[in-house]
Amino acid sequence: MKKTLIFLLTSAIISSCNTDKKEKTDESKAVAIVSKAEQKKDSANIKHFFNAALTEGKSYEWLRDLTQNIGGRLSGSPQAAKAVVWGEQLMKDVGLDSVWLQPVMVPHWVRGEKEEAYYTVNGKKKDVPVCALGFSIATPGTGIKAEVIEVKSLKEAEELGDRLKGKIVFFNGAFDETLINTFQAYGGCVGQRFSGARICGQFGAKGVIVRSMTNGINDYPHTGTMSYGETPKDQYIPAAAISSRAAENLSADLKKNPSLQFYFKQSCETLPDAPSHNVVGEIKGSENPEKIIVVGGHLDSWDLGEGAHDDGTGVVQSLEVAYLLKKNNIKPKNTIRIVFFMNEENGTRGAKEYARLAKLNKEIHVAGLESDAGGHTPRGFSIDANAENTALVQSWKTLLAPYGLHDLIKGGSGADISPLKDDHVTLAGYRPDSQRYFDYHHTSTDTFDKVNKRELELGSASMTSLVYLMDKYLYTDEKVKP
Amino acid sequence: MKKTLIFLLTSAIISSCNTDKKEKTDESKAVAIVSKAEQKKDSANIKHFFNAALTEGKSYEWLRDLTQNIGGRLSGSPQAAKAVVWGEQLMKDVGLDSVWLQPVMVPHWVRGEKEEAYYTVNGKKKDVPVCALGFSIATPGTGIKAEVIEVKSLKEAEELGDRLKGKIVFFNGAFDETLINTFQAYGGCVGQRFSGARICGQFGAKGVIVRSMTNGINDYPHTGTMSYGETPKDQYIPAAAISSRAAENLSADLKKNPSLQFYFKQSCETLPDAPSHNVVGEIKGSENPEKIIVVGGHLDSWDLGEGAHDDGTGVVQSLEVAYLLKKNNIKPKNTIRIVFFMNEENGTRGAKEYARLAKLNKEIHVAGLESDAGGHTPRGFSIDANAENTALVQSWKTLLAPYGLHDLIKGGSGADISPLKDDHVTLAGYRPDSQRYFDYHHTSTDTFDKVNKRELELGSASMTSLVYLMDKYLYTDEKVKP
Repeated sequence: MKKTLIFLLTSAIISSCNTDKKEKTDESKAVAIVSKAEQKKDSANIKHFFNAALTEGKSYEWLRDLTQNIGGRLSGSPQAAKAVVWGEQLMKDVGLDSVWLQPVMVPHWVRGEKEEAYYTVNGKKKDVPVCALGFSIATPGTGIKAEVIEVKSLKEAEELGDRLKGKIVFFNGAFDETLINTFQAYGGCVGQRFSGARICGQFGAKGVIVRSMTNGINDYPHTGTMSYGETPKDQYIPAAAISSRAAENLSADLKKNPSLQFYFKQSCETLPDAPSHNVVGEIKGSENPEKIIVVGGHLDSWDLGEGAHDDGTGVVQSLEVAYLLKKNNIKPKNTIRIVFFMNEENGTRGAKEYARLAKLNKEIHVAGLESDAGGHTPRGFSIDANAENTALVQSWKTLLAPYGLHDLIKGGSGADISPLKDDHVTLAGYRPDSQRYFDYHHTSTDTFDKVNKRELELGSASMTSLVYLMDKYLYTDEKVKP
Repeated sequence: MKKTLIFLLTSAIISSCNTDKKEKTDESKAVAIVSKAEQKKDSANIKHFFNAALTEGKSYEWLRDLTQNIGGRLSGSPQAAKAVVWGEQLMKDVGLDSVWLQPVMVPHWVRGEKEEAYYTVNGKKKDVPVCALGFSIATPGTGIKAEVIEVKSLKEAEELGDRLKGKIVFFNGAFDETLINTFQAYGGCVGQRFSGARICGQFGAKGVIVRSMTNGINDYPHTGTMSYGETPKDQYIPAAAISSRAAENLSADLKKNPSLQFYFKQSCETLPDAPSHNVVGEIKGSENPEKIIVVGGHLDSWDLGEGAHDDGTGVVQSLEVAYLLKKNNIKPKNTIRIVFFMNEENGTRGAKEYARLAKLNKEIHVAGLESDAGGHTPRGFSIDANAENTALVQSWKTLLAPYGLHDLIKGGSGADISPLKDDHVTLAGYRPDSQRYFDYHHTSTDTFDKVNKRELELGSASMTSLVYLMDKYLYTDEKVKP
């Protein structure tokens, strides 16, 4: 269970490419090895990737199909199963050299009936936009009703201890709006959502409601995963998210009416694990077919919206990397493997299985790239690699900056490829602009219409450019060990 | 009339901060003069501007008020007059040291009844989303109907010459989607809209329809200004824009049915010039009150939408510069003057009057900053200054880059401040991300909901940071001449 916590926090933190800090780059060494002629060729190829993405790209129509014809794809759901079939067929249509499914058992949590929440203040009933958190248990059929204790952090809740007994604990820690990269603000808050119920259940609280993980004030509850950790089952309490506006209102009403009673009802349930798949396809390397560069996003999503920015965009951009390489007649030296990972949202079982099989089969991964930070306009990549390869990637800045890719910063990659981490593997995360991401993240508003066609396509071409350069230049020959 | 053409083309081109080209910066000299302690102080002040904008900013609510309570504000309209009153009051509310109105006569074109367009192909009537172009004449009350000649450029139309006689000329030149900066694509097409009717009228064409100035395919006609130039009035022909999707469809239908007849009707009209105003307010400089840094956007907009991204965002961001300086107790050395310019869209009369009065009154402008490229996430500034001051502004990159302001590129500033251009005046244009801008530009979809609060506020803080640095460091003392 601790693993789940680590997974989540890693997932949050690795997403936080810190644009506030400046990074120093030692470009001299890396750049020195590339001739002017090769640089010119690279520059031309990158321009071709962008031209092709912007005029002949397929990602936008693929995304329309995935989000509007299949929709939200929570692990274990019929939609997730449909998405696997969709993904396999699409990889074949693009003409990858081989395409296969990797079986994996995934958690199967279902939301059940639409949740309900309200409280009454000065004789007036106030309905509250609410949704259960992933893995939460249900309330009794009649719901739960109790007085509310408001806290701003896990620490504050822990300090209250036994005073939480019989109460609904209201976690109202808000995003730090001064952080330019919104993933950092998310990282600073998400512990409330993930661990709030685990901590408060130990002290006999009746339930937990959490302010949605979002910037500013909006009217949609934002779901997401939580965990009861190692606590015994009789300490499990239901956990739900309420919209940030409802949280603001509730906080104000509590100041005037500290004894108001909050009610919520949910009927969610964790079923036995369900069979599912990662979808995998590859272009065989022309020189080192045994060496793999993996490129992916996650196929599952939360159930409330259409899983557009999280992470339909990452899925279609990953496949478009292969499409754009083929379209531009690039024959990669190494094998380029595209993976649509299953179950990033609540378990990363697909990622773990992929890494387990890679190890078992002694596969040589030289690099990985993940897109799981939305489909907005390109800003850069975060790099999780040794010093030498980090400097090498940063030396490509002059090639990438004309496309808005200025941030080449040491940081995490993504939850699905990070299990492949090793000193000789160069991992990277695609980092688009983050300002709008948490407006939609895990809500009913994460829909196709929030994705801009050009921004999506620029992302595909950005990723293709990085993969092209990694394939061509990464220091792997002597150093990669199976 | 030639002036109008130049204004428009300048307006298009100066907006095109070229992110495709790399710029070399000589930072050594400029940076050398600033001590570490001062750099640290500057860095802290800039952080304060961003913190304040993101937590106590007013621009979003100001924009809501302007766009939703007043709406579209075409020059000469009652809404434009309302916006002047609104702007004057708001500047007073912010506590500027002085606020006044600058009277100016503006063109007064009115759209009249909703336009109508259709054609019939294979017995099926196809309605076409259409809108008149600004300054166009009306069609006769019964509309006009004629065969269509499709061209892709002004040159192509000119070459057809007398063959245009009696026809409706269909300008179908599309944006070059491979240009990363969409303002460049706009610059490459907008001549069709501006001069199409002038050229075709000379050859006896009956009317002109123009593919909307937009990226990709959408369903809204995009209006904008046009001109008949010096052609005699009897050669004036009506000009309208049709949506890009309608343009695609019409082009396909013409291939199969070259003799199909297109119909459109519009009742627009140019009335006598109307009285209006620039709205001006300033914070008096503490050391050099006679030296002025002007910061502005334009208060007028097209009539179809709410004038949100064009240019409500520029208006509220400009005022927020003053608000954020005051909020952070910065006492500028020079006078910071905020201007809401009138009539940028069809005449730039406000800009010309502002510049005329500045010259007449021997005002000393040391710098100017304009925001008229939308309210999306920050990317940088374009700089229109002498070599020394350009290098100086570029030397601030390390201070600005943490906020996504990487592009500090030599280029134009903005249509409203460019009449102040002089070798010793440092002009700059705020350059947010351009990918989505032409989705909304000059359409009914340019509405408040398309603006993201954080992106808007980051823009205000970006502009404040540049103004702060210009106020503190610009080389002006010996060089500025009245």
